[in-house]
Amino acid sequence: MQATLTSKTALTAEHIKLFINLLGENYVLFDQESLHDYGHDQTEHLLFLPEVVLKPRTTEEISEIMKICNANGIPVTPRGGGTGLSGGALPHLGGVVLSTERLNTILSIDEKNLQVTTEPGVITEVLQETVKEKGLFYPPDPSSKGSCFIGGNIAENSGGPKAVKYGVVKDYVLNLEVVLPTGDVIWTGANVLKNSTGYNLTQLVVGSEGTLGIVTKIVLKLIPLPKYDLLMLVPFTSLEKAGEAVSAIFRAGFTPSALELVEYDALKITAAMVDSTAVQVTDDTAAHLIIEVDGNHMDALMSEMESISELLTQFDCGEVYFADDAQQKAELWKLRRRAAEAVKLQGYTIEEDTVVPRAELPKLIRGVKELGRQYDFHAVCYGHAGDGNLHIRIKKEGLQNSQDDPQMVQCLRALFELVKNLGGTISGEHGIGLVQKGYMDIVFSNTQLQIMRDIKKVFDPNNILNAGKIF
Amino acid sequence: MQATLTSKTALTAEHIKLFINLLGENYVLFDQESLHDYGHDQTEHLLFLPEVVLKPRTTEEISEIMKICNANGIPVTPRGGGTGLSGGALPHLGGVVLSTERLNTILSIDEKNLQVTTEPGVITEVLQETVKEKGLFYPPDPSSKGSCFIGGNIAENSGGPKAVKYGVVKDYVLNLEVVLPTGDVIWTGANVLKNSTGYNLTQLVVGSEGTLGIVTKIVLKLIPLPKYDLLMLVPFTSLEKAGEAVSAIFRAGFTPSALELVEYDALKITAAMVDSTAVQVTDDTAAHLIIEVDGNHMDALMSEMESISELLTQFDCGEVYFADDAQQKAELWKLRRRAAEAVKLQGYTIEEDTVVPRAELPKLIRGVKELGRQYDFHAVCYGHAGDGNLHIRIKKEGLQNSQDDPQMVQCLRALFELVKNLGGTISGEHGIGLVQKGYMDIVFSNTQLQIMRDIKKVFDPNNILNAGKIF
Repeated sequence: MQATLTSKTALTAEHIKLFINLLGENYVLFDQESLHDYGHDQTEHLLFLPEVVLKPRTTEEISEIMKICNANGIPVTPRGGGTGLSGGALPHLGGVVLSTERLNTILSIDEKNLQVTTEPGVITEVLQETVKEKGLFYPPDPSSKGSCFIGGNIAENSGGPKAVKYGVVKDYVLNLEVVLPTGDVIWTGANVLKNSTGYNLTQLVVGSEGTLGIVTKIVLKLIPLPKYDLLMLVPFTSLEKAGEAVSAIFRAGFTPSALELVEYDALKITAAMVDSTAVQVTDDTAAHLIIEVDGNHMDALMSEMESISELLTQFDCGEVYFADDAQQKAELWKLRRRAAEAVKLQGYTIEEDTVVPRAELPKLIRGVKELGRQYDFHAVCYGHAGDGNLHIRIKKEGLQNSQDDPQMVQCLRALFELVKNLGGTISGEHGIGLVQKGYMDIVFSNTQLQIMRDIKKVFDPNNILNAGKIF
Repeated sequence: MQATLTSKTALTAEHIKLFINLLGENYVLFDQESLHDYGHDQTEHLLFLPEVVLKPRTTEEISEIMKICNANGIPVTPRGGGTGLSGGALPHLGGVVLSTERLNTILSIDEKNLQVTTEPGVITEVLQETVKEKGLFYPPDPSSKGSCFIGGNIAENSGGPKAVKYGVVKDYVLNLEVVLPTGDVIWTGANVLKNSTGYNLTQLVVGSEGTLGIVTKIVLKLIPLPKYDLLMLVPFTSLEKAGEAVSAIFRAGFTPSALELVEYDALKITAAMVDSTAVQVTDDTAAHLIIEVDGNHMDALMSEMESISELLTQFDCGEVYFADDAQQKAELWKLRRRAAEAVKLQGYTIEEDTVVPRAELPKLIRGVKELGRQYDFHAVCYGHAGDGNLHIRIKKEGLQNSQDDPQMVQCLRALFELVKNLGGTISGEHGIGLVQKGYMDIVFSNTQLQIMRDIKKVFDPNNILNAGKIF
């Protein structure tokens, strides 16, 4: 119990005893290895040790924990799968990490109303596969879907490739059970598809990055699973032309179920890592678009894919590669989904999650490259081009964290200024968390930020829950 | 200026002078006729006279008005098209009615990014038709679309028939310019399709019924206009069977672009009012479903309609009527859209806007009929069955307003208790406003209501903007 005795917060050995009484000693961890395990997520190379890790099983236990922490001013950082890219789950103030990993049950699938009720610690892909067995579809699918938790997706308002047709997490959340920082438990809405009954507390909690409450039950809307999909990979000799093609597809009246962009370098690095030969990457390729359409009528999909292919010839695209079967599709998606991991291993440790109106993508890409020359860094871009959501992975010699280097901070300010001038904003799906909060003044006025701070106070008067995140 | 001298609020002749200096005397009205015109909306038979009606033209003017009212504690009720059904625009405290009718310009249509930026005083149908000319589609289409304002739609989070496939207003709002009660002007977000940057102020303002700020600019997402649609009308001998059929359609994997239910009485009354012979209404019909599918591939749509028709035969439906051309479709939609007006003229003056998970519709309908017998009223039901959103129009001899009669209040409490027990809530698309606020305790705890009140305080510390609405 030594760790807690040197506490930098109000946490004491007495509180630890209370937690052990509440949860049992197996679920109250404060050995160094555990503190280390729960001290980082996927954000750059950042580590902040908590003082204790709590693993409650129920809403009631979480409520009790919050009452203790609220009464004693102990910081609490909620944590899902630990796959976050903005540091939302980093316990930078020490105190308690509250892991939702044991709230991992899918509570019910309502096939009559196309709804699922789940606990937050269920892995997103597990949820998707489970409802798929019933012919149902929960579309939001972040790249980390094999390890991230649905609760974390709610916290960050995650997106993923399907968002371009099907929307993001917020578009599927009907109702949430939330433990407030005071320990009170509320539902945010009702299990209905339309709701004009009071302020939309559901949408306020979605994307609030675990700062307003701890989500303990989630009711999601499901839709019928489309019967068919088609997938193709299209190479472009120019990154900007690829960006222009994205906008043209929508202007021509098509709504693909995925429209992803992957820059040449990112694809090459990822193909090498996953040892894939599915795609021949050649040096005259600058970027690829991955385009998927889905629906219930194969003829219609074939016709759409043909029309899109034809349209793309106006943008200097190379030979289109159609994924012929499930295996080829899986291979292509693997290349896209593992890009972040692959380029991170190659030293691209800093990731930004910019989003602009989609027609502004070419300008954003041009701007990123220009900043790279100016500030002497390498960048690879990939992401959800159909939504204008571009992930920018940055590699700079000797630099692991964006916050350690004043020049990198200056560079990121320039990047976000550009994004703002293009009508965009800082984060499309990763959240602000810890690493982007220093840039919020670029996109928000004091008045806006003060409203957010005051809303935080309404939920968390003692500022104990994930304090110091977002703003 | 006599009217203002007998003011029951802090409004004085001096303030009126300030308003005239600001707006010009043409846009500051306080004659009895104007006060009467702006003293009611479409909610039951309710009239509350304001003390002055202001018609600003710009954000800046609205900001100045709010500064004056905020400094002096003068109640302000914002007003759009005056088509509201819950009393959100009723100036029940007197003071200022602030009409947005002169902010009626569509500012820009961004065809590259599929967005429109508009002022709030544009009529919804005008907006829809204008973007349609560019091949673009703004789906939310309340029945009042020919006279309601897009700003009012934002305030109430309106829906309409297309919501079942395309979502409600909140699903299309990307960004809002809002004048706060203090006179400060903010934008709530950014013009992007995905956004995880701070709390979702946009979604907090949508559906807040003009209590948090006055929306002065609106950025909406648009989608490509589907090329084709097909429409059919299906009679059922049992209202409950019609309700069961609704749920079955979705469970079979179909997503119609509209799925409306109209009870026999409502259709008959409406057909008589609009002098339509399009539909043969016979006494063995209990209700109709109006079913629309849309998309870009006619073959696929034909096949879907056939499959749906076949499915419906399991629910004792009568002969299906297909609308063959644009005129027949328009005729059918007219019957649906004018139902509220028609039955209101027949004395059905009280309208509720219940919403339940869609498979619970038969139970809700059964419950309404039972309540009718118990409390001695007639009810006709119609609405957006695909969303579980049922409008219930009530006619009781000698009663024009739901609030005037303790027995009706008791009856509505029973109705909303039923709705809650079915997993539903009070309002799906009309808002709470003035007439439903007495029932909020049925669906929300004190904790939830207190959070909403505290959020209201964050935006409106002096409680001057549409005070006394919702809660």
